[in-house]
Amino acid sequence: LLQLTLPGTDLPQRALDLARRTEHPSVLNHSLRTFLYASLHADSMSSESGEVDRELLFVACVLHDVGTADVYNGEQRFEVDGADAAADFLRNEGRPQHEIDSVWEAIALHTSPGIAERLRPLTRLTRLGVLADFGQAERIFPQEQTAIEVMYPRLNVERELGNRVVRQALARPQKAPASSWPGILLAAHKLCPQWERVNAAF
Amino acid sequence: LLQLTLPGTDLPQRALDLARRTEHPSVLNHSLRTFLYASLHADSMSSESGEVDRELLFVACVLHDVGTADVYNGEQRFEVDGADAAADFLRNEGRPQHEIDSVWEAIALHTSPGIAERLRPLTRLTRLGVLADFGQAERIFPQEQTAIEVMYPRLNVERELGNRVVRQALARPQKAPASSWPGILLAAHKLCPQWERVNAAF
Repeated sequence: LLQLTLPGTDLPQRALDLARRTEHPSVLNHSLRTFLYASLHADSMSSESGEVDRELLFVACVLHDVGTADVYNGEQRFEVDGADAAADFLRNEGRPQHEIDSVWEAIALHTSPGIAERLRPLTRLTRLGVLADFGQAERIFPQEQTAIEVMYPRLNVERELGNRVVRQALARPQKAPASSWPGILLAAHKLCPQWERVNAAF
Repeated sequence: LLQLTLPGTDLPQRALDLARRTEHPSVLNHSLRTFLYASLHADSMSSESGEVDRELLFVACVLHDVGTADVYNGEQRFEVDGADAAADFLRNEGRPQHEIDSVWEAIALHTSPGIAERLRPLTRLTRLGVLADFGQAERIFPQEQTAIEVMYPRLNVERELGNRVVRQALARPQKAPASSWPGILLAAHKLCPQWERVNAAF
């Protein structure tokens, strides 16, 4: 059976602690599923794309939506606020600049379709992990998905995540430029402000 | 008075020839104005962000919309098809991989708001040049703008560029993911297919 084994040193544990302290449980679970899917992709692609650092992959995946946490809600789109928060975390951990830059890129670009998939393995795998958890990936078997969702239940993540991004954007419109994922979520919300189900643009 | 001086070796001239052969005149002029604005930004920011390679800045700016040329219209969003075309050009010129990667990034991300501005100087300056030509930049004086637009007239670039991106996307919807610039242009077109002025999402 699948299980979560934190890779490498205790850096991943501290990243997980940070996510646990700051993120909504549905976002945390989504982030952990994203790592498991990204790892499955990494296993099946290692011959194509070279080895990826599993510790950094964990950090990027577990913190990829940390910009939706209230404490990291700044002036920028949530992807970039989150990338900055992860970069600060790694800097405090004393990690080298090239590791900080690659995790920053993976998080900042995780909602950039057709671009993230073409960038470095860490960015590509983080994106593929996110897509897998939203039903848009190949190479994931239904029994893997079931096992992963039993471990980390979905808790209506699409609604929670969409609502959090929209709530941030309503307070600070510069967080949602039109041609961005926050932007299309905000536009859909404005078309139907009373809509209570998952954002139509999710 | 402002004028276009091609920087460095004859690489810029060959990039310009490529753009002239393949791009619509309005897109070509926009690309040249983008370089001039990006250069003005580079002049005023050199103390902040270090020196940028002016040759590569010219290549990135003059080819940033080359994905709208019919000959480079492939399966990916036009920004990425264009980035690949520019990378092929530089590879044929024998340029090193780090230069190819940085021009690729500048072109692929030129429509990514809030992200391109945070990346390397080449990516940031290309983005700022594009924004300046669409009236969204600081540090540009009206007399500079007038001089630049006399040299390279606008030729209704907003309508031409928007229409080209939409036409490509209508033929291959995968070129326009929802949360992308092509995606919001396509969505606006579908709302008002008879609209003849500049795309409402431009």
